[in-house]
Amino acid sequence: MSLAVVGSIAFDSVRTPFGERERMLGGSAVHFALAASFFSEVHVVGPVGDDFGAEHVELLRSRGVDVADIERVAGGKTFFWRGHYEADLNVAHTDETQLGVFADFEPKLSEGSRNADLLFLGNIQPELQRRVRDECSARLAALDSMNLWIETTRDPLLAAVGEVDCLMLNDAEVRMLTREPNLARAARAVMEIGPRIVVAKRGEYGAVLFTPEGFFALPGFLLEDVRDPTGAGDSFAGGFLGYLDMQGTERPSEPALRRAMAYGTVLASFNVEEFGTERVARLTQEEVSERYQELRAMTHFELSE
Amino acid sequence: MSLAVVGSIAFDSVRTPFGERERMLGGSAVHFALAASFFSEVHVVGPVGDDFGAEHVELLRSRGVDVADIERVAGGKTFFWRGHYEADLNVAHTDETQLGVFADFEPKLSEGSRNADLLFLGNIQPELQRRVRDECSARLAALDSMNLWIETTRDPLLAAVGEVDCLMLNDAEVRMLTREPNLARAARAVMEIGPRIVVAKRGEYGAVLFTPEGFFALPGFLLEDVRDPTGAGDSFAGGFLGYLDMQGTERPSEPALRRAMAYGTVLASFNVEEFGTERVARLTQEEVSERYQELRAMTHFELSE
Repeated sequence: MSLAVVGSIAFDSVRTPFGERERMLGGSAVHFALAASFFSEVHVVGPVGDDFGAEHVELLRSRGVDVADIERVAGGKTFFWRGHYEADLNVAHTDETQLGVFADFEPKLSEGSRNADLLFLGNIQPELQRRVRDECSARLAALDSMNLWIETTRDPLLAAVGEVDCLMLNDAEVRMLTREPNLARAARAVMEIGPRIVVAKRGEYGAVLFTPEGFFALPGFLLEDVRDPTGAGDSFAGGFLGYLDMQGTERPSEPALRRAMAYGTVLASFNVEEFGTERVARLTQEEVSERYQELRAMTHFELSE
Repeated sequence: MSLAVVGSIAFDSVRTPFGERERMLGGSAVHFALAASFFSEVHVVGPVGDDFGAEHVELLRSRGVDVADIERVAGGKTFFWRGHYEADLNVAHTDETQLGVFADFEPKLSEGSRNADLLFLGNIQPELQRRVRDECSARLAALDSMNLWIETTRDPLLAAVGEVDCLMLNDAEVRMLTREPNLARAARAVMEIGPRIVVAKRGEYGAVLFTPEGFFALPGFLLEDVRDPTGAGDSFAGGFLGYLDMQGTERPSEPALRRAMAYGTVLASFNVEEFGTERVARLTQEEVSERYQELRAMTHFELSE
């Protein structure tokens, strides 16, 4: 079983009420890959510049991630994002974005990526997502996006959504994309475009899964220390799709999708405990298993005595 | 088993993106009593004016609610609230408040209320809450409040909180009251003041229960039609405490508290489907049971195959 991800590989400078960091390793493909690496073999597709250090590649490699499709662009600069969060960590502000090598990115996929069983199209231009989807034979493809693309490239985005099996967006973005204020109705509208699986992410409040069989909602894992939410959505996607890939079936069952939601929640919860990739980079399989069981205990109730 | 509630009995004029209503029956004590009436005998304590119609009293009576302590103040006017909600129904605005008979309210409790097994102190001035708590012999008392009292009467409110077993607030209010930005830490700070049970309500995102044993989180019930959130928190409290009262034990067990959270979620979900008390007024026991099971199905996952 294997998983390919295309998305940003970035340096993030982040300030939250709990501290700040300059030029940390980040980006959707990185957060996704580290999370998914607990379950499956991951191929990362994305460009970096000369400024991308060997230690960053080494971190990914140490987690078993295939870095063959990380393209180093001579003379280029790695994608850079600077942002900060309010006291309410659900509110993020972008202060600076430098596309760098991402401006002219042309995905080049090795055989490993093209033949991966699952594919995650991280939050990049919808046209690029479509091209990658087209090149890959994945039996299940999932797509993330953001308000920027919904506002500026709505039609290409809708076309890209129509070509995947699973859409993963923030709940507000699902509503924005479909122009439907009610989340359950919005998710149904997405299914009419194509995807049979819709995951609406709700930040600290958790996530909701919509399938033709119904819906499933999980609260976020409650933490006493949350330092930096950057990348939480991608870690969620990594846990979710990583677990599904490990299952290895063409059509994941409803119970498997629910467990995948739980693993997504677990990986996202570790992501936010520290800055950038700090926590997930030293995470162990045992910690993942332990928190998965804690999440079950935290959300479970019996109908009667 | 029986339950007493002190709180507002009101007329609400509400506008949402889905319609508007003038001078509907409302108020924290009314929403609470209707929800709790599915589980237990409820005594309502609160004042109304000459403008309060017999049909409103009759609605409560028809659900088995004891209305002996609804005090009719001659020449007075019933508490009135006018408000509206944004497209995002989580955002409410108050346009007008007329205290009416509530300005000089002096709670007078009959024996039935004084001897009730459980007590709910709805969102009114903390000093009034303390007086009622003092008069009642309830084995378990719960308290709701709001940002207004946290800002204007913080010390009396903290004293009132210190005298109850259970605090039920919106998550933002729990943080505001304790001046602790993290919810889990804020709930622990509340427990240090007195309550051994803390319920943080999160609107459409559900609620979290904190006890000395740990925490339990439930998402809100997903609905395709939400028309008016007014009173949802009080309906939640009514379902929660009504179920606990029905259990009849001095110290509710952890599993019982979790089921109470589920019943609170169920009653709140019916509340918001239509305006004011419209939906809950015609709700049946069968519908409550059915949705309770649906909520379990919607939130349940198995650790492994």
